[in-house]
Amino acid sequence: MKILVVHGPNLNLLGQREPAVYGTTTLAEIDGALLKRSEELGVELSILQSNSEGAIIDFLHREAPSAQGIVINPGALTHYGLSLRDALAALAVPFVEVHLSNIYAREKWRHRSLTAPLARGQISGLGWRGYIMALEFLAEGRHDGK
Amino acid sequence: MKILVVHGPNLNLLGQREPAVYGTTTLAEIDGALLKRSEELGVELSILQSNSEGAIIDFLHREAPSAQGIVINPGALTHYGLSLRDALAALAVPFVEVHLSNIYAREKWRHRSLTAPLARGQISGLGWRGYIMALEFLAEGRHDGK
Amino acid sequence: MKILVVHGPNLNLLGQREPAVYGTTTLAEIDGALLKRSEELGVELSILQSNSEGAIIDFLHREAPSAQGIVINPGALTHYGLSLRDALAALAVPFVEVHLSNIYAREKWRHRSLTAPLARGQISGLGWRGYIMALEFLAEGRHDGK
Amino acid sequence: MKILVVHGPNLNLLGQREPAVYGTTTLAEIDGALLKRSEELGVELSILQSNSEGAIIDFLHREAPSAQGIVINPGALTHYGLSLRDALAALAVPFVEVHLSNIYAREKWRHRSLTAPLARGQISGLGWRGYIMALEFLAEGRHDGK
Amino acid sequence: MKILVVHGPNLNLLGQREPAVYGTTTLAEIDGALLKRSEELGVELSILQSNSEGAIIDFLHREAPSAQGIVINPGALTHYGLSLRDALAALAVPFVEVHLSNIYAREKWRHRSLTAPLARGQISGLGWRGYIMALEFLAEGRHDGK
Amino acid sequence: MKILVVHGPNLNLLGQREPAVYGTTTLAEIDGALLKRSEELGVELSILQSNSEGAIIDFLHREAPSAQGIVINPGALTHYGLSLRDALAALAVPFVEVHLSNIYAREKWRHRSLTAPLARGQISGLGWRGYIMALEFLAEGRHDGK
Amino acid sequence: MKILVVHGPNLNLLGQREPAVYGTTTLAEIDGALLKRSEELGVELSILQSNSEGAIIDFLHREAPSAQGIVINPGALTHYGLSLRDALAALAVPFVEVHLSNIYAREKWRHRSLTAPLARGQISGLGWRGYIMALEFLAEGRHDGK
Amino acid sequence: MKILVVHGPNLNLLGQREPAVYGTTTLAEIDGALLKRSEELGVELSILQSNSEGAIIDFLHREAPSAQGIVINPGALTHYGLSLRDALAALAVPFVEVHLSNIYAREKWRHRSLTAPLARGQISGLGWRGYIMALEFLAEGRHDGK
Amino acid sequence: MKILVVHGPNLNLLGQREPAVYGTTTLAEIDGALLKRSEELGVELSILQSNSEGAIIDFLHREAPSAQGIVINPGALTHYGLSLRDALAALAVPFVEVHLSNIYAREKWRHRSLTAPLARGQISGLGWRGYIMALEFLAEGRHDGK
Amino acid sequence: MKILVVHGPNLNLLGQREPAVYGTTTLAEIDGALLKRSEELGVELSILQSNSEGAIIDFLHREAPSAQGIVINPGALTHYGLSLRDALAALAVPFVEVHLSNIYAREKWRHRSLTAPLARGQISGLGWRGYIMALEFLAEGRHDGK
Amino acid sequence: MKILVVHGPNLNLLGQREPAVYGTTTLAEIDGALLKRSEELGVELSILQSNSEGAIIDFLHREAPSAQGIVINPGALTHYGLSLRDALAALAVPFVEVHLSNIYAREKWRHRSLTAPLARGQISGLGWRGYIMALEFLAEGRHDGK
Amino acid sequence: MKILVVHGPNLNLLGQREPAVYGTTTLAEIDGALLKRSEELGVELSILQSNSEGAIIDFLHREAPSAQGIVINPGALTHYGLSLRDALAALAVPFVEVHLSNIYAREKWRHRSLTAPLARGQISGLGWRGYIMALEFLAEGRHDGK
Repeated sequence: MKILVVHGPNLNLLGQREPAVYGTTTLAEIDGALLKRSEELGVELSILQSNSEGAIIDFLHREAPSAQGIVINPGALTHYGLSLRDALAALAVPFVEVHLSNIYAREKWRHRSLTAPLARGQISGLGWRGYIMALEFLAEGRHDGK
Repeated sequence: MKILVVHGPNLNLLGQREPAVYGTTTLAEIDGALLKRSEELGVELSILQSNSEGAIIDFLHREAPSAQGIVINPGALTHYGLSLRDALAALAVPFVEVHLSNIYAREKWRHRSLTAPLARGQISGLGWRGYIMALEFLAEGRHDGK
Repeated sequence: MKILVVHGPNLNLLGQREPAVYGTTTLAEIDGALLKRSEELGVELSILQSNSEGAIIDFLHREAPSAQGIVINPGALTHYGLSLRDALAALAVPFVEVHLSNIYAREKWRHRSLTAPLARGQISGLGWRGYIMALEFLAEGRHDGK
Repeated sequence: MKILVVHGPNLNLLGQREPAVYGTTTLAEIDGALLKRSEELGVELSILQSNSEGAIIDFLHREAPSAQGIVINPGALTHYGLSLRDALAALAVPFVEVHLSNIYAREKWRHRSLTAPLARGQISGLGWRGYIMALEFLAEGRHDGK
Repeated sequence: MKILVVHGPNLNLLGQREPAVYGTTTLAEIDGALLKRSEELGVELSILQSNSEGAIIDFLHREAPSAQGIVINPGALTHYGLSLRDALAALAVPFVEVHLSNIYAREKWRHRSLTAPLARGQISGLGWRGYIMALEFLAEGRHDGK
Repeated sequence: MKILVVHGPNLNLLGQREPAVYGTTTLAEIDGALLKRSEELGVELSILQSNSEGAIIDFLHREAPSAQGIVINPGALTHYGLSLRDALAALAVPFVEVHLSNIYAREKWRHRSLTAPLARGQISGLGWRGYIMALEFLAEGRHDGK
Repeated sequence: MKILVVHGPNLNLLGQREPAVYGTTTLAEIDGALLKRSEELGVELSILQSNSEGAIIDFLHREAPSAQGIVINPGALTHYGLSLRDALAALAVPFVEVHLSNIYAREKWRHRSLTAPLARGQISGLGWRGYIMALEFLAEGRHDGK
Repeated sequence: MKILVVHGPNLNLLGQREPAVYGTTTLAEIDGALLKRSEELGVELSILQSNSEGAIIDFLHREAPSAQGIVINPGALTHYGLSLRDALAALAVPFVEVHLSNIYAREKWRHRSLTAPLARGQISGLGWRGYIMALEFLAEGRHDGK
Repeated sequence: MKILVVHGPNLNLLGQREPAVYGTTTLAEIDGALLKRSEELGVELSILQSNSEGAIIDFLHREAPSAQGIVINPGALTHYGLSLRDALAALAVPFVEVHLSNIYAREKWRHRSLTAPLARGQISGLGWRGYIMALEFLAEGRHDGK
Repeated sequence: MKILVVHGPNLNLLGQREPAVYGTTTLAEIDGALLKRSEELGVELSILQSNSEGAIIDFLHREAPSAQGIVINPGALTHYGLSLRDALAALAVPFVEVHLSNIYAREKWRHRSLTAPLARGQISGLGWRGYIMALEFLAEGRHDGK
Repeated sequence: MKILVVHGPNLNLLGQREPAVYGTTTLAEIDGALLKRSEELGVELSILQSNSEGAIIDFLHREAPSAQGIVINPGALTHYGLSLRDALAALAVPFVEVHLSNIYAREKWRHRSLTAPLARGQISGLGWRGYIMALEFLAEGRHDGK
Repeated sequence: MKILVVHGPNLNLLGQREPAVYGTTTLAEIDGALLKRSEELGVELSILQSNSEGAIIDFLHREAPSAQGIVINPGALTHYGLSLRDALAALAVPFVEVHLSNIYAREKWRHRSLTAPLARGQISGLGWRGYIMALEFLAEGRHDGK
């Protein structure tokens, strides 16, 4: 079983900047925790961070056909990346959308997600634990959303 | 440590009706799973289901002062229950908002949550597992949301 | 055959107050007319008036499983009672929405009904006769809405 | 006593097309039922179907001065026919607006009626029975709307 | 010099109905006053009243090429008659829009005119005198709008 | 002379929580001040606090017919409690709406009051003194609002 | 009989600037034409041009009690001068609103007039002739608006 | 095989007026080109131009049952002709919507088409060639829109 | 202690006009009552009425530095006087906004106050008594708004 | 003569996925058909598919100066790619916008095209044939849009 | 060469109040710096500060005809002063709009400037230096905005 | 001291195209002027032009930590590039937003800047001089925005 993990724009800055909003955990630490948990679950991970919507779509086109699930934090693309949204719709692999901070407690424009209507579900505001929860949910392989 | 679990209007019908949207798990089964997990975590639970906003507020006023966290699925009150929102704001106990179905894949009026801006975070669309995740998150006692 | 009749908030004041808007017929007189007509039609009625959304939902949860139709005037809950709306959606018993006054000739916020999209139909502005028409329609048992 | 019956654009297609929305009853059958019921009630009917707003207004200008009530299903003119609306306002004959289907369960633009604020009342979604109900209401001659 | 006078839907009812809004002058009296004044000014008039947008457009297509001005009260078509608007734009004959009542003191939807942006000017609320003023303005033949 | 005092949802928490917004005065202290002032004015008070809209409406239906005025702080129901609004409209007893904090300096959704258009007046942001002012105004018995 | 003539902000520039929009007639020439016509009609005129809303209101307060009509071109105050609007409402002297250019053919914000709903009528786009027409209408003293 | 061609209001003026927007080709020339091409394709054409929505609907009701496709340029009815829209929905014959000019480069209200959501497709801005393209598409008889 | 009293545009007309809305008390009578009450409270008053926003701002700039409170009824400036709003923000003297009539029972545009978010509080609809209440509140010198 | 063909994000998936929406033709087949037709027309084609807005802009900057026309299907960039829009505006080469599916029969956000107002025209919903039609139109070299 | 400098309402308070927003520089100091720089540039300055829109318009009418540029900080009039906007449009002297603070980082209503669309350009948030930059730009006399 | 200069999409076309909007200065000339002025100021510049949002973000992530200021013209990304906005927010280096043309005199969608609320200030419409002004402001090193 293979699961993709996608970190959108600016998430490479994690831990170094704006710790009041995003915490002090770095992206490397999150990826480490995901890899450790995926080994326990017997799941193969393929991870990408990119600041370019085009590069994320290219990655999804290439990797998704052999994957059974996607954990994605699209960053600000959540709110305007219609091409990313169409890629997720076209590829039809079950995905869970994750946000480190509670997007509903922030600016109004962060409240609307273009990708959430296509997702199995969304986890918002639970920090890096949200990634692990999403991985566990998808690894369980019964994502009927109920 | 005590954690409150609140199920809003119509959640008592769970499992019996509209299984296409809400799954076949009953509310009793969800509560059973929560109690089992809370025992493992050494957490005391206090659970309420009510179809009346006033009754939920009364419960929160009475129970929240002795609790360290709240797992709440406000049902349709999520979208218009401003009194419930004010109660959660006044009591200032950390809470996680849970929705069984992915509210962002349903009617537009379900996309706006009045309580989410006050929550530590929100879990939507992951079924009964969302309740367990919320319980675990609050039991861990480090709800800085990062 | 059993049909439920639900009168929402403030309808108990009927006939005593605001006769210019709601007429001089009392709620007891309407209920009397409904009971008389239901006997003629060989239909059992179960009637509730309540000022509390929660109490109306409790009544519907308890009574609807054994009923074949609902005549409901949700009063002002028509316009903000999303929990009542969800209850009607979940219970899936055919219902007709009735308003004594023509809600489209009154304040703008009365023009939007949350429950009408789920109803078989809506009768507005025909006074107490609207209740009788709704009862007859549901009693006929062919509510294909055509 | 004379009552007018007006069927707006496309209602001549009734029964032949889109039976899933409008049922299988033809317009001739509805008119037949109306004529039969009007005889029982001792009421004279004058019936028009037209696809042209101008023709409907001409008919109303000519016939309404000698009529005591109007049963009207304006079809799509309900939502944009401001000239028809002004005619109904100017003629000031009591009228009941009828829709075969439940317009509140259909496209959003069908939810707003330009003529309903001027009507005694509106019956929506009860199929051809709605016409009969409207006729009976107007024939009773006490259209105080209460 | 020829000037067209167009009265839109329902204006044939003038004087007989709703005198509180539209006054007691009949359309025949207005036309009489216009003919009298046009004789004084040495202007030929061609007058139409119709309840049908299509008939008004046909009239304009036929008559406008030989006319030097149009006095038009489009009635309710003012607010939704986009085909009439396009006809006036295409024909490019100077016109003045007249309303008997002050449309800005009435319902909100009467405040927006589709044709006014194309007109030389608009006279609203000055009753039948507005027609005479428009005729005089156009007859003067210097409609630079200043 | 009898005057009703109604405190809406969450006002029982007053003084204990969120003192930065609502001050340190408790509800008991406000009620004490109101009772003391009402004795001086020779007015009988009937006081209710409830977190349930239905219970407040029941109280008003029962008490208002024998009262000459109402001092009401509807809490969050101010902004969505249409049933409460209809009760106040139906009962037609003069009332003054009071808010402890300045609702216009808070969240945007608190700026719109459903009940204020029906009130004699509104006092917002003057703390517990607002209740006393409202009582004095109503006790004077000349609530022509000028 | 006395009639007031009010020219709002920037109208003193008339004729000198932006002739493409406002024509080449100067304000002095318009006032001259108005005085000449008022003499013929046996009407006394009192004329003001001011760039200050406060000064216009002061003028109206002082002069309106002895006047029988007002011809006013409020300039840009038409669209935001709520104090001027309130003055016209309070003084209750019949007035006609005049605009030199067709405000409906210009920027969108010029389409909404705050004062038009209070006016007898509005003349827009007929240049300086609009002032004369308004004067004649008011001088006739039968401003029932029909 | 029979295909209908419908030209809406004002299209009879084509070629004579507003050539900057609509070109210099006349409607007769377009119809000539369509007839020539239809002969080559072995398709029978039935053509209508009308300025009246009602007449267009009558034509469609009469002709569409024996046709396999419709090429329609509804003119301004595109934007408000809900009765025409309902006729096209009811008749369910595949149609292609054609606009001579690029409606998206013109006024904002021309950007919204009521009929496009029901069409196989839309061609806008390609002049009279758009009619030919639509005819060829429908004549090919594989209008699955892919 | 010095308190400023500011009456905005048109308030000088008080008592003479529109008594149905504003009562029969004149501005002189209100000022008299304020002066009498201020003497009792040992407070110095400085009073201004002006129809000019600029003059009110000049007054506030000059007087506010030596004052401890402001009672202000900005009249229609409440709704568009952004310069007045900025003056009140800059001067930072506690103020209470007073409206004689209940602005929430009048036109919609009167519901939004630009200055209320900066005020200690707002009193609306309690007539001239509102001024006295505001004076008393400010004179008490504990304007923490609770 | 050289014409550019641009396929936006996700169009490389064509034929493999979502055939219900986009048909079974692959992008290679479309490009094959375009090349075949361009040979017949004596036109040179330069084709790009990219998932990156930046890469598409780079391509247009480089190729457009030597091209006489552009056939572009911007995919989801149609609705938010303002940089692409600016590139097309700056380069000023005539282009036709093509969409395989009827974007007006899909989600509302697909109805608004940022690039259509700059295009010669738009073809929507006619499948791969739309590309050929666009090519033929541009190759004819008389793109006056009439 | 003469350049006008206009400071709108409340700018006379500069330096004394709200230094956190507007800095500690006084208006006299800014004027001093402007005069010093204008001498270096060989430019004559005419400076006005006023809290009254009417006074600013009077100044512009009088001074602009002999000036070659205007540096203007309209204060809050930026957002509602349509008369000032019309004056600047009529006078057609090149002007640069200056704001001390970054108006886009403040309240939403400060983001919309009525005058910016008419300006050569706008400088916002650069403090008193913005005035100098605007002066230098206008003094250079090549204000083609490129 | 190091300052970054970022030119967004399409700015490489500067000088060659749309000179009516953007002037005839090329990007190389602007960069030349910036480098010359930076030498005089003793400031090191790092310059990027890119048509890809991702590439600009990568550049900022890499360069900003060693820079003291950013001069950025985000081109069309100003209006939809939320990822770029988040990068600027995260990096927290003072920046000035520059636009060559006056964006407030162009299309409405250009009036809203996503990045301006985060900037020290914005210079719009002053052509290439705006870049120099921004550089000088940042080089002065006192960017408190006052």
